[in-house]
Amino acid sequence: MEIKVQKNIMNRNNEIAAENRQRFIDDGIFTVNVLASPGAGKTSVLLKIIETIDGKIDMAILEGDIASQIDTDKIRKRGIPVMQINTGGGCHLDANMIRVSLSELKPAKNAIFLIENVGNLVCPSSHDLGENMKLLIASVPEGHDKPYKYTSMFAAADAIILNKTDLLPYIDFDKEVFYKGVHALKPDVPVFEMSCKTGDGVADFVNWLKDKRKLWQTQHTK
Amino acid sequence: MEIKVQKNIMNRNNEIAAENRQRFIDDGIFTVNVLASPGAGKTSVLLKIIETIDGKIDMAILEGDIASQIDTDKIRKRGIPVMQINTGGGCHLDANMIRVSLSELKPAKNAIFLIENVGNLVCPSSHDLGENMKLLIASVPEGHDKPYKYTSMFAAADAIILNKTDLLPYIDFDKEVFYKGVHALKPDVPVFEMSCKTGDGVADFVNWLKDKRKLWQTQHTK
Repeated sequence: MEIKVQKNIMNRNNEIAAENRQRFIDDGIFTVNVLASPGAGKTSVLLKIIETIDGKIDMAILEGDIASQIDTDKIRKRGIPVMQINTGGGCHLDANMIRVSLSELKPAKNAIFLIENVGNLVCPSSHDLGENMKLLIASVPEGHDKPYKYTSMFAAADAIILNKTDLLPYIDFDKEVFYKGVHALKPDVPVFEMSCKTGDGVADFVNWLKDKRKLWQTQHTK
Repeated sequence: MEIKVQKNIMNRNNEIAAENRQRFIDDGIFTVNVLASPGAGKTSVLLKIIETIDGKIDMAILEGDIASQIDTDKIRKRGIPVMQINTGGGCHLDANMIRVSLSELKPAKNAIFLIENVGNLVCPSSHDLGENMKLLIASVPEGHDKPYKYTSMFAAADAIILNKTDLLPYIDFDKEVFYKGVHALKPDVPVFEMSCKTGDGVADFVNWLKDKRKLWQTQHTK
């Protein structure tokens, strides 16, 4: 019985996700679902993207958290439209939350819309929001074994950032083991090494993201 | 409808958790549910506890992960009874998994039983396993804002380890903000600063754990 109910909920989520996806196509909005563990540096990466884009492309940000407004306050200082969703106990965002946020945020046509999901390497991977790509942020202090343990999350990622590379000298992190685990799940996924602290790798990633958006707009929008 | 089904599942979980709890009382087994983000250092803390107890108290370990046997292999080398549960997509352990593991692990009377839950700061806090205490492991690289965001997990903890203190010189971690968030949720919760890398703080925590076990045995067992 619980399986059937679960299936109904998922079907409804997927319907709304499809509506969101159509809305993004209609308005040329390139939407990124940002996934990570608690503390991997999602908000820091978002701030670096905002800083690098530097107003040249319109942006909108949705912040998902169990509780607090901390991340939204950080983004608001940059003058970007931002909205916080607190899920209460909920372990992931769902497509309806995105739909609701769209009428609040009103992203500009051709904007980049970044959705920071709840910090969780399990549940968010199985809920389609209608996004155009999933960006997974892993971080050096989490350790090189994460692709072996959180397989569905790593398999779902369209791109991976390995963040906090400035900590590599102080941590036993075997890059070879990490990449082997990542590529066993998804041989062609691009991985960007980055440090939000030093800025290393930020420009490379943002250039890739801009190219990815351009390609998507060519393929999907009028 | 989904709420009723969810309630039935939770009731069943709580029934089994109560049976587990009685079993722990009958056999004097002190059981710790170890909770943390992915990569906070759960297995490293377990290995440090095992090393410090050094065979003077019987132990048993249950390793919960979405996938892989990595952590179990690390523990097995120490000659401690250990079992791996892979949840597939499941984002937390439940009471029935603990019951099943008990017939496999057969912890000795008066043992310490450590359960490493799935790496997740959301879902595991709301599932009673029948444990005697919840130990939350936070870590410095996750940042000082976690108690403000993952409130139910921090509120559920009977003790907190702040792990990876060796990284404090390299990370903007404001201890005052962290402690303020922790104590706003639970004023009297003990917090142990620890580095599994240097060994700092390990002895203090293990001494506290042994005292806690002794007190529990005096209160609850025959």
